[in-house]
Amino acid sequence: MSSLTKKSIGAGLAIAVAATATFAASHSASSSNKAVAARHAQMQMIGYHIGVLGGIAKGEMEYDSAMVDAAAKNMRELAKMERATLWIEGTEQGAVDGSRAKASIWQDSDGFAAKFLDLQNAADAMVGAGSAEEVGSRMGALGKSCKDCHESYRGPKN
Amino acid sequence: MSSLTKKSIGAGLAIAVAATATFAASHSASSSNKAVAARHAQMQMIGYHIGVLGGIAKGEMEYDSAMVDAAAKNMRELAKMERATLWIEGTEQGAVDGSRAKASIWQDSDGFAAKFLDLQNAADAMVGAGSAEEVGSRMGALGKSCKDCHESYRGPKN
Repeated sequence: MSSLTKKSIGAGLAIAVAATATFAASHSASSSNKAVAARHAQMQMIGYHIGVLGGIAKGEMEYDSAMVDAAAKNMRELAKMERATLWIEGTEQGAVDGSRAKASIWQDSDGFAAKFLDLQNAADAMVGAGSAEEVGSRMGALGKSCKDCHESYRGPKN
Repeated sequence: MSSLTKKSIGAGLAIAVAATATFAASHSASSSNKAVAARHAQMQMIGYHIGVLGGIAKGEMEYDSAMVDAAAKNMRELAKMERATLWIEGTEQGAVDGSRAKASIWQDSDGFAAKFLDLQNAADAMVGAGSAEEVGSRMGALGKSCKDCHESYRGPKN
């Protein structure tokens, strides 16, 4: 085998190894980006439903018990989403574009879980609110659960 | 009162009425847009989780029973989301930018509900899949439920 052939094979292998490493890195980056995007979708759905309830409380939307209960139940179930697929380690702010998740989410996972439980309970307590006024009076706990979690576990705007 | 003053008041009232009508229209459009965006977030979360399961089935991601169960349970709960807040009448394709929802969703709401039940059942059947092969063999029903619903109730790309 000529030294030129050896060199070519060596170069070919180096390119193949580099390509594999690039693939692995991009695949991993892509998985992390997708997890962050899915979390944002979860937050968007939660935000949408609190918006519906807020609109009813403020009289911007007509009170409708079916809408109130659906919004409350959806928020409750969104708060109960399994975190294993969504809150993957290594997807904190700074590690993945667009992420505002503080690293403390993974260092203090019990505390983080407790915040989602607060949201779940506040949403559950909204089910059955019988008037716009009742929706309004139950909004406090719901809004507080959002605010508390964001203050503890969400970083500054990117 | 001078006729000029009368004219001014008349013009002022007309502007006020127009502004109110514009507000009502824009508020309504905005509510519809938000419902469509929340549905897209729901679909994105479902798509994300089927991607996790597909990655495991294809060997692109390592088999992990906690990830499989979390993905399956999240899909199941996403399929069970209350539809009252998300699938609001008047938000079909053509009526709201970005919507691909066929009007038949509202004309045949039992059929539409049955498709989500298929997804719910297929996702539930994925819980406990004990290997990448088992994930793969259970993917068929899951993929079919997505495809069937899209074929029946999703319009062409916008």
